[in-house]
Amino acid sequence: MTNIKQERHYTENVQDHLKQVESLLQKHSLLEAVVHRQELPRNDRHDLLDTLVHKQHIAELKRFLDNLHPADIAYILEALPIEQRLLVWSLVKAEHDGEILIEVSDAVRDSLIAAMSRDELQEATEQLDTDEIADLAPDLPQQVIREVFKSLPIGEREQLRAAMSYPEDSVGALMDFNMIHVREDVTLEVVSRYLRRLDELPDHTDQVFVVDRNDRFKGVLPINLIVVNEPEVIVGTLMLTDIIQLHPDDKAEQAAQAFERYDLVSAPVVDEDGKLFGRVTVNVVLDFIREESETELLNQAGLREEEDIFASVWKSAQNRWLWLALNLCTAFFASRVIGTFEGTIEKFVALATLMPIVAGIAGNSANQTTAIIIRSLALGQITHENARRMLLKELAIGGLNGVVWGGVAGLFAYYLYHSIPLGIVMTSAMLLNLMVGASVGLAIPLVMQKFGRDPAIGSSVMITAITDSGGFFIFLGLATIFLI
Amino acid sequence: MTNIKQERHYTENVQDHLKQVESLLQKHSLLEAVVHRQELPRNDRHDLLDTLVHKQHIAELKRFLDNLHPADIAYILEALPIEQRLLVWSLVKAEHDGEILIEVSDAVRDSLIAAMSRDELQEATEQLDTDEIADLAPDLPQQVIREVFKSLPIGEREQLRAAMSYPEDSVGALMDFNMIHVREDVTLEVVSRYLRRLDELPDHTDQVFVVDRNDRFKGVLPINLIVVNEPEVIVGTLMLTDIIQLHPDDKAEQAAQAFERYDLVSAPVVDEDGKLFGRVTVNVVLDFIREESETELLNQAGLREEEDIFASVWKSAQNRWLWLALNLCTAFFASRVIGTFEGTIEKFVALATLMPIVAGIAGNSANQTTAIIIRSLALGQITHENARRMLLKELAIGGLNGVVWGGVAGLFAYYLYHSIPLGIVMTSAMLLNLMVGASVGLAIPLVMQKFGRDPAIGSSVMITAITDSGGFFIFLGLATIFLI
Repeated sequence: MTNIKQERHYTENVQDHLKQVESLLQKHSLLEAVVHRQELPRNDRHDLLDTLVHKQHIAELKRFLDNLHPADIAYILEALPIEQRLLVWSLVKAEHDGEILIEVSDAVRDSLIAAMSRDELQEATEQLDTDEIADLAPDLPQQVIREVFKSLPIGEREQLRAAMSYPEDSVGALMDFNMIHVREDVTLEVVSRYLRRLDELPDHTDQVFVVDRNDRFKGVLPINLIVVNEPEVIVGTLMLTDIIQLHPDDKAEQAAQAFERYDLVSAPVVDEDGKLFGRVTVNVVLDFIREESETELLNQAGLREEEDIFASVWKSAQNRWLWLALNLCTAFFASRVIGTFEGTIEKFVALATLMPIVAGIAGNSANQTTAIIIRSLALGQITHENARRMLLKELAIGGLNGVVWGGVAGLFAYYLYHSIPLGIVMTSAMLLNLMVGASVGLAIPLVMQKFGRDPAIGSSVMITAITDSGGFFIFLGLATIFLI
Repeated sequence: MTNIKQERHYTENVQDHLKQVESLLQKHSLLEAVVHRQELPRNDRHDLLDTLVHKQHIAELKRFLDNLHPADIAYILEALPIEQRLLVWSLVKAEHDGEILIEVSDAVRDSLIAAMSRDELQEATEQLDTDEIADLAPDLPQQVIREVFKSLPIGEREQLRAAMSYPEDSVGALMDFNMIHVREDVTLEVVSRYLRRLDELPDHTDQVFVVDRNDRFKGVLPINLIVVNEPEVIVGTLMLTDIIQLHPDDKAEQAAQAFERYDLVSAPVVDEDGKLFGRVTVNVVLDFIREESETELLNQAGLREEEDIFASVWKSAQNRWLWLALNLCTAFFASRVIGTFEGTIEKFVALATLMPIVAGIAGNSANQTTAIIIRSLALGQITHENARRMLLKELAIGGLNGVVWGGVAGLFAYYLYHSIPLGIVMTSAMLLNLMVGASVGLAIPLVMQKFGRDPAIGSSVMITAITDSGGFFIFLGLATIFLI
């Protein structure tokens, strides 16, 4: 919350800005097209005119971009096709480069970095705080990181090394080092004087951290308490001590849940010796939660990572292939299950028309179960105590669904083929496969969690494999026994 | 950030607390079981002993709960089966009831409210701020709301009426009224004196709002600027004016994106006359984002709303039935598509084994496309400009997938049945159906968005309906033409 922000223009609706950039770009590319198409020799005056108009449009676009908040520029870059994106990127003030690189998604960042020289990259990176450099580091060329590292003061080198050493899903990766610390034996007056000397406080400074002589964390002093209390009060008498402390090796998700539960704006990160090491702020937590949930949605749909919507066909296809290949394998397997019953189908072709129903509904139902379990696992609600209860409940729901929807499907089969045994086989197969679905829908995410894997990734391939093959096997198997 | 918080116990790992409550409850229920099973007449001494031990355990549990943060109690209530949940709920300090009701999920809230008398509910509700009462109102009996309303001062009645009038997904629903406002012509000294008189500032007060004589919003004054500047500075010279302003009718999602982009802690809500009306704080935005993403995940899996994991089988089943019923309808339709080709299948039963592959892979691929489009729509990245580009790209990926995976599937078919025409029909059907999938995977969310519906809800039923029926139709149709 600094004066710098006064230069920035906040906007209620960034989509209007996107439209404006698009229309400015259109003027520009229209003109370019005109210039390029005129392959005939032209007189100089005409040429000059073109160039002037062209330059004018570029200048207009640049002026427009200069007034935007870096986060808004990041948003616009995301929404532009690659050639227009790079044109806009080249017009952005160099001093915003670093911040914009931090804001854009990984996929788009790659495309921007690829268009920058090493010097530009180094310059952009050096504008950033050490925790931000650490975020960017995996996408930067080795040599740039080395140069940036050399340019840092010793203390910040240590910070960068520390920040880079933590895995992406740990508190260490969310942490920054912009915390203000004070001693517990001074008065608020002294604290106020110290703060006033700083000119501006780091963003999200809702509290200063209280440490002892050896940098050991003692408590926090909310800025609001400084404001509402008399200057002569001693920090130690006012500070809050029963406060949440994060550790750099904690899971980031755990920190996010603490921020949600306790409505925090910032929280101290303390190392194993009890020393104040850094802090986590709510804006980083917000980004983390949004990214996590997006990743989960994409993973569930079988995408390995977020996709630049203007990435090449080839690159996008690669992002999607693992999933399709896995599904193809399970489909081949299910196909062979059907293959073993070819004789039965030949005698009673109605089975071929009905079998996808048995497989499909159980798959849907199992995925419902899995969605509930994954959510409960994420919230830490599933204990040894209640897992058995949940299995019984899901089996009961599967049974109920089997009777109701299996009954409907059985009537459908009877109505079409006027065979009571076929109707009974249909209903029984639905019931059995829904129970199978309930069991695997519950068991697969639990087992994946147990083995330390993310239950949201890949659960659905396995579930579909089982409910498809299982459904075909149960239905055609029962038909072979009772109908042929 | 008030002194009240000092009474609260923050915890790094709330799951440990859950385990402790569970073990305390086990002691309790073990004992209860003993008491209940002894149907034989007992002597008084034995009876008394039981009751004493029992009372002791209850007291122990109560003591433990008294030390917990209301948000942690809410978490524990979520994870407990219904009878244990209600026991714990009855032991919670009445003064925390309101806050806990706000914290728990809708599903669990219902179960807690059902166990409370009207007086208890009224008491719990009256502890809350007006914006929180508005959040709770839809779940409360009419009469309780009327009583609470009557008990409020006039000004707060107006606030409550206003807060209740906004739809759930609007800024008005996120807003609270705990903002501090000052005039622009006073000094920081005056502001500081005013703040000191308040004893404590509302949570998330990172800035005070500056208004004119008619309550018109002029700008914001970050608390941090009060702290770092000299007391004689005039508010008007220091306040930030180019700041985001929300309006109560704005979409909540838009506000959430502004908080993410600009790293806000609080933002002013201004009405159509430019008057300061309320504020939105980051903790509410955090909860909103988490809830939105959870809802999206649950909706995609075909659940209408979040489920209390210990809800009755009947209630859970209802939550899941709409989806299953819809899927059953589309499955019946697909089944009839196959039915029209019964003659073909009878002559060439291999088709029955291969047709699920054609349908399934196109469905997977279409859902990948949809996931990308839904994400881009949510981020506001899709414009008229780039929608056509994206269609071409998705068609290209569909084509590439068709050649690659269709080719693999064709070889699989040839390998099994030694028929080159069958292999070609297989590959062609895969290719065509993947193109169909790419088109509908893109078009359906776009059309739903156009008609003002949430593209994340129900897209996948429609897509699967089309790729299933389409796949069967294309594959069996081609087979009828070329193989029979």
